[in-house]
Amino acid sequence: MPGRLIGVGVGPGDPELLTLKAVKAIETADIVAYFAKAGNLSNAHAIVADRLGHVAELPLLYPVTTEIHRHDERYKSAILDFYEKSAAAVAAHLDAGRTVAVLSEGDPLFYGSYMHIHCRLADRYQTEVIPGITAMSGSWSAAGAPIAQGDDILVVVPGTLDEAVLAVRFAEADAAVVMKLGRNLAKVRRALAAAGKLDRAIYVERATTAAAITMRLADKTDDVAPYFSLLLVPGWETNS
Amino acid sequence: MPGRLIGVGVGPGDPELLTLKAVKAIETADIVAYFAKAGNLSNAHAIVADRLGHVAELPLLYPVTTEIHRHDERYKSAILDFYEKSAAAVAAHLDAGRTVAVLSEGDPLFYGSYMHIHCRLADRYQTEVIPGITAMSGSWSAAGAPIAQGDDILVVVPGTLDEAVLAVRFAEADAAVVMKLGRNLAKVRRALAAAGKLDRAIYVERATTAAAITMRLADKTDDVAPYFSLLLVPGWETNS
Repeated sequence: MPGRLIGVGVGPGDPELLTLKAVKAIETADIVAYFAKAGNLSNAHAIVADRLGHVAELPLLYPVTTEIHRHDERYKSAILDFYEKSAAAVAAHLDAGRTVAVLSEGDPLFYGSYMHIHCRLADRYQTEVIPGITAMSGSWSAAGAPIAQGDDILVVVPGTLDEAVLAVRFAEADAAVVMKLGRNLAKVRRALAAAGKLDRAIYVERATTAAAITMRLADKTDDVAPYFSLLLVPGWETNS
Repeated sequence: MPGRLIGVGVGPGDPELLTLKAVKAIETADIVAYFAKAGNLSNAHAIVADRLGHVAELPLLYPVTTEIHRHDERYKSAILDFYEKSAAAVAAHLDAGRTVAVLSEGDPLFYGSYMHIHCRLADRYQTEVIPGITAMSGSWSAAGAPIAQGDDILVVVPGTLDEAVLAVRFAEADAAVVMKLGRNLAKVRRALAAAGKLDRAIYVERATTAAAITMRLADKTDDVAPYFSLLLVPGWETNS
């Protein structure tokens, strides 16, 4: 009998933000798989490292991340090949009857790498997805910033989008979250200013970890942002 | 010394989706407070009922919910008075040095009632917010539906908005979540059709509980939706 595929959300960073269900899935899996860049440590792995004991691990190592532009055909081809091989590696364990837990920072089906395994295997194997605390939830909780209430519209945008598109989306929504800041912070800052929302924006880096930084974007004097950072624009005026 | 205020996200319904941190906060609090409609059971309370033991409880009972329209001045006045009195009741315990955990279904700062306590007390008392799994995460995980990836824009809209506004927001975004369906399902359905996205929509009711229902919206033949239901419009075409 083939094994079970489980996409496990491990939350934003603090190991205490694992769910009871995620802990159980990790501790009873035969194989724990996780994505990482070759040569780098995996954040998802670090979050659960204390719980892995002697379980067999299956690292899935990205051959390329930001060295080649993601719209370049060479990037697309390398990454597609990587996802195919990763899914095949997981499937081999499932075919051997092993339960495979694929770790995902935050929530597996919310901008997560796990989705590339899920879409290739969920039709063929018994599959379960365990939701996780998203980085954005971890961030607004750490900042104590109510993000949306009542009739508020919340938009989640990747910082990779064009400046003009970002400005329109910021202007239309009551609240916003900007993911994938990385090299895009200067551009996102201009788009927020154009939408008249720069003053409301909160910058959060590595939320819920010991290295966490939370500050008003207006107080951040550089445009350097690591991969694990995001912006919050709370929508709710706390006057009611 | 005054006590500590903790906003505790208890997730979408399955008690196994509590975080380790939430469990600890609930089990060590002096007072566990929760919102409910007078005469009704609290869903947040039900999720953690097995963990409460003999802890003192502070129910905060809404004097009115949908009997009066929310734009009616009588509603606004009654609800504002209720939030003031609820915050005062919590503050009295904090002043007496007690730690008060305020339960919140889903995530406390994401469309949650806890925000009305938070905005009145967080400046005056030591406060912590523990994020929770949102109903939308629980829903797309249960449906196995990847919601957003890469450059996708995700919009979260309350079903209470005007049909025309909803249709524009649906058309602009790659992915959408509709909260607060309730009496608004027929209207939301028309807005999705106008945006050409009716076929993609997934209806989820009471996700992650024993009473959960997940179906294509196109297959749902009535427009009856309980408070604990939402719609997902996954943005990601799973062909990459």
